[in-house]
Amino acid sequence: MTAFRSPEAFAAALAELTAPDDAAIAAARARQAQLTKPAGSLGRLEDVAVFLAAWQQRERPVLECARAVIFAGNHGVTAQGVSAFPASVTMQMVENFRRGGAAINALSTASGLELSVVPIALDRPTADFTQAPAMSEDDCLEALNLGARAVADRPDLIVVGEMGIGNSTAAAALCARSFGGPASAWTGPGTGLAAEGVARKIAVVEAAVRFHADAPATAFESLRRVGGREIAAIAGAVLHARRLRVPVVLDGFITGAAIAPLFAQNPRIVDHCIAGHRSAEPGHVRLLAAYGLEPLLTLGMRLGEGSGGALAVGIIRAALAAHQNMATFAEAQVAGAL
Amino acid sequence: MTAFRSPEAFAAALAELTAPDDAAIAAARARQAQLTKPAGSLGRLEDVAVFLAAWQQRERPVLECARAVIFAGNHGVTAQGVSAFPASVTMQMVENFRRGGAAINALSTASGLELSVVPIALDRPTADFTQAPAMSEDDCLEALNLGARAVADRPDLIVVGEMGIGNSTAAAALCARSFGGPASAWTGPGTGLAAEGVARKIAVVEAAVRFHADAPATAFESLRRVGGREIAAIAGAVLHARRLRVPVVLDGFITGAAIAPLFAQNPRIVDHCIAGHRSAEPGHVRLLAAYGLEPLLTLGMRLGEGSGGALAVGIIRAALAAHQNMATFAEAQVAGAL
Repeated sequence: MTAFRSPEAFAAALAELTAPDDAAIAAARARQAQLTKPAGSLGRLEDVAVFLAAWQQRERPVLECARAVIFAGNHGVTAQGVSAFPASVTMQMVENFRRGGAAINALSTASGLELSVVPIALDRPTADFTQAPAMSEDDCLEALNLGARAVADRPDLIVVGEMGIGNSTAAAALCARSFGGPASAWTGPGTGLAAEGVARKIAVVEAAVRFHADAPATAFESLRRVGGREIAAIAGAVLHARRLRVPVVLDGFITGAAIAPLFAQNPRIVDHCIAGHRSAEPGHVRLLAAYGLEPLLTLGMRLGEGSGGALAVGIIRAALAAHQNMATFAEAQVAGAL
Repeated sequence: MTAFRSPEAFAAALAELTAPDDAAIAAARARQAQLTKPAGSLGRLEDVAVFLAAWQQRERPVLECARAVIFAGNHGVTAQGVSAFPASVTMQMVENFRRGGAAINALSTASGLELSVVPIALDRPTADFTQAPAMSEDDCLEALNLGARAVADRPDLIVVGEMGIGNSTAAAALCARSFGGPASAWTGPGTGLAAEGVARKIAVVEAAVRFHADAPATAFESLRRVGGREIAAIAGAVLHARRLRVPVVLDGFITGAAIAPLFAQNPRIVDHCIAGHRSAEPGHVRLLAAYGLEPLLTLGMRLGEGSGGALAVGIIRAALAAHQNMATFAEAQVAGAL
């Protein structure tokens, strides 16, 4: 299966997005109105149930096969000292995911998610994007298609996560290139840089944006030039999920930034996405505002791996449990509002 | 078991609150610092794990026996038209809880909570507290002790919930009496009053505060005069939980207001409490600010029953899963920060 055979095929897919199912929305709303509770009193839980109904195209959506997928990649830009951790940690953490020792393992299990780990050419870091495009066209297409493959069996829901030392620098560059604004507005401490490191990171993001300023402003070129393999894979997963009407839970700043260049071309790309949480990384607040997405959780998390998205699936699962299992006023013989 | 034999015994218990376990806090913090993640990157999840450690007095807290308890009571003040639903709904919803058809049933199951339903003298509504104390001393003591009984077997955690048509009026009166401020600051639409109904409800709260203005300003007298049976039971449960070092998850405005008069006498009463969520009821924002509690969830819920508290237990469970199951840097052979 090759979802995206060329940059043009990727652009065409982004131009033709599927729509939510209006009949399923109406049916799910009608059911919510009959459940034994004051109208609207479950707040976002009601919206979440209707959202899932819209994309799964059924009144009563399910999470039988729900999956977290972590894409991992390495970044040449780490040579510039943009992370608090050495680049070797990407591979070490992939091993940790495989052995079950990371936060995402615990949180996926807690939320009933199967976990898939997709390392992408970790032995071939991307080029330092202050001096060259991060990837060739072929490498970028390969990453996009690896992302698409992760949703090809059409799970009931997917959480996108990532691991890649240095990738919050790529994310900041993608946001700055897609939305404009000063690099400082999109650049934060990531895994824990001190102020001096953040200043260096801002300069790196500025240099990257400057270096690629004259390149074509397409989603594909932005991903290829200042993204990374795991970031392109996320973009591919989100776009192919849309084709298959698989609802997506975004994690934090990196997964959000992965679709920034897609959003710049077609803002409807976020319609099948839930923002799992609002990260402590400062650029994420700005990014969610640009998308018009209200996060389910705000817990000061800033770990990545899909951790905030996986945690949010617990809320989504509870929302569906209420939608599915509550009695109606008629079934329970409870009087409605006066 | 009688936890509170007299109003004086209740006051004495409130004066002598247990303290968190400093050694368990230190041990839990030390463990968090070794887990394979950037320091602090799990945000509130780390705090939650340490909080549970502090009250369960062990480095690795558990939720083997976690319980949601719903206390239900009826309110004479409903005669004044303060609710969108008829008073008969309290009993109908208790039946719904027992048959498993309510939101709290679905949400308790989703969060792995056992559910206990404690209706208290539903056939004897409290007196209309604009004209008399809501309860006799004996009735108030009985309710306090029913609350204490719900935690007497020392579960690992308890979620307090409530059902009682009219009880957001009692909650508003308790807040106004405990914290001062205009009645309008504490009074909202509850289950769904329109503006006219809210205005009537504000007048009722004002009348209640005025009627009892000269009564002793003790927690017991406030609960007895402007509370309700289910509200006093919540207060008894929270106070007895503190004696037994059982961590408490509060739900929304009503459960929060139940401890307002306790807080006025000893602000440390909230130290073993987690605010499960921030309700859409306007007075709840003000109440949480007074307590200095940051809610785990803000999802626009306003249902009661313990629903927001039960939902938050999913987050707490995930926090403990990460605390318990993640590998340390040494175990996983992952490099730490540079």
